[in-house]
Amino acid sequence: MKHDRILLAHGGGGSLTKELVEEILLPALDNPVLRTLDDAAVVAINGDRLAFTTDGYVVKPMFFPGGDIGRLAVCGTVNDLAMQGAQPLWLSLSLILEEGLSIADLQKVVASIRAAADEAGVKVATGDTKVVERGKCEGMYIVTSGIGRVVAEHRLGCAHVKPGDAVIVNGPLGDHGVAVMSRREGIAFQTSVVSDCAPLWGLVKRILGTGVPVHALRDPTRGGVAAAVNDIARASGVGIRLTETALPVRPDVRGACDLLGLDPLTIANEGKVIVFCPGSDAERVLAALKRDPLGKEACVIGAVTETPKGMALLRTRIGGERIVDLPTGEDLPRIC
Amino acid sequence: MKHDRILLAHGGGGSLTKELVEEILLPALDNPVLRTLDDAAVVAINGDRLAFTTDGYVVKPMFFPGGDIGRLAVCGTVNDLAMQGAQPLWLSLSLILEEGLSIADLQKVVASIRAAADEAGVKVATGDTKVVERGKCEGMYIVTSGIGRVVAEHRLGCAHVKPGDAVIVNGPLGDHGVAVMSRREGIAFQTSVVSDCAPLWGLVKRILGTGVPVHALRDPTRGGVAAAVNDIARASGVGIRLTETALPVRPDVRGACDLLGLDPLTIANEGKVIVFCPGSDAERVLAALKRDPLGKEACVIGAVTETPKGMALLRTRIGGERIVDLPTGEDLPRIC
Repeated sequence: MKHDRILLAHGGGGSLTKELVEEILLPALDNPVLRTLDDAAVVAINGDRLAFTTDGYVVKPMFFPGGDIGRLAVCGTVNDLAMQGAQPLWLSLSLILEEGLSIADLQKVVASIRAAADEAGVKVATGDTKVVERGKCEGMYIVTSGIGRVVAEHRLGCAHVKPGDAVIVNGPLGDHGVAVMSRREGIAFQTSVVSDCAPLWGLVKRILGTGVPVHALRDPTRGGVAAAVNDIARASGVGIRLTETALPVRPDVRGACDLLGLDPLTIANEGKVIVFCPGSDAERVLAALKRDPLGKEACVIGAVTETPKGMALLRTRIGGERIVDLPTGEDLPRIC
Repeated sequence: MKHDRILLAHGGGGSLTKELVEEILLPALDNPVLRTLDDAAVVAINGDRLAFTTDGYVVKPMFFPGGDIGRLAVCGTVNDLAMQGAQPLWLSLSLILEEGLSIADLQKVVASIRAAADEAGVKVATGDTKVVERGKCEGMYIVTSGIGRVVAEHRLGCAHVKPGDAVIVNGPLGDHGVAVMSRREGIAFQTSVVSDCAPLWGLVKRILGTGVPVHALRDPTRGGVAAAVNDIARASGVGIRLTETALPVRPDVRGACDLLGLDPLTIANEGKVIVFCPGSDAERVLAALKRDPLGKEACVIGAVTETPKGMALLRTRIGGERIVDLPTGEDLPRIC
């Protein structure tokens, strides 16, 4: 470890998170299931393949345009299950509440959890509530875990991507991160951008329904598309080449990024999936995505190549090529 | 709700926690699985019965005699699975870390998680790490969720206890709470008490192995035995009568309770199980418990009666009888 204390960047989904996971957590807890580091684990119980995942939510502020910490806590976790080709079934809900939190805010968040769970077709099976002293939390932190039934017939995963694959995304990038930042104390700005936070199982079901042998699905949350393509390039030992002019980014999001000096590729999304499938099948996947309200703006954003192994490159607007680096941390912490 | 803001006591496992769950959480999230409010949910997936549970750990301090937050986060969750007669299989691990936490402390906790997981026969399948700013957490909070396979042939649960049942516990009460308090800033005191924090599946397997039709198992954590027997008396519509002279309490724990004005019945335990089984089978269960290192001091502490429905009573040392109240909150917050 380069540092002897935890930095905010260790939680950002970038290179310091990776270092923390690979040098501290994985060596101590290692086993074949954990080692894949996919969005959800796939475990066999009595012959069934179940997906199992967990995520903590510490987003600040708790309420933001297009969602709140409750909706996020449902969508983020069901989407991790969907990324393994699993139908989300059950959630657990662990609340860490700050002394002094208003019951009215808690009720709003819980109602939002229920609405998102209904939308995603899951139920909360079990829960826990802890309270910590004023100041030892910020309103509330939520951890949800999820169980799903794997329905994809072949194994999806970061390590299964192949040269010749197309890289597809279901819509514009960066909405979630920009929506949260726009309400962040100290940098609040006017924007019409709302979070894309949404449950993606319906969309994934459509993709799987095409029969296309999809190699990997990944939701570009913390660390954005940059972290997702870096993880996959490394795990699959391939090169990933994105095309800047193909990246869907709303003008408002681009404007906010210019203003704040951010790269839309590193901003968190909460309703996006990156699909890696054989290039020859890309049209079928696109057609399926476009039939879904969450996939109307789906497009191909790049391709997978033999080399440079383990790296992601961006062909820029002006015709050059740059490395898509794994961000160090997050440009702003606590986006999810 | 009696209050319009969250109080520390809402997290204490007593009457205010109950109010929060019954008036805010359950109405919003209600479904037949959640409604049982057992330690773990039992869900059917492809015909298998799986137990699923989650718990947040915010214990303060992180390291205490006999354990640490990592060991606690494994034991607490696998024990909730065991209480439903389920063999714990997989854990998820969600870390919320405070900026500035020392990597050395994190490593100690993670090593302790691994050791406890090995002891409990489970593996960490999936995880997540978030970091919050200095002061917005206290070192670290941990949330673990667990999946287990239900092996008990009949359904165990709070609502299944019957008049004529014996109430058995596997050993002395209050060790965990007193051990944590003894290191708490502001009230630290000298004691030889160490936390009883331990995984209980091995012990539960022995109980199930007797073939006795056990009605309920409950680990008396937050709110202690008092909360556990109140929950069960209410859910099963029975009276529970405990005998003070039968309660196993170590002299050091009793001394600390006298000093702090606490009741051993309301103090958290992390390696104890209360067994409710037909009185005529009590001897077989006791014999099985005593064959296990964690059950050597097992004893009968009370009996279940028709009346007073929904209440727990204690026959006191001097021959009187008092109501065992559900504590309002916890005598001290953040014991687990």
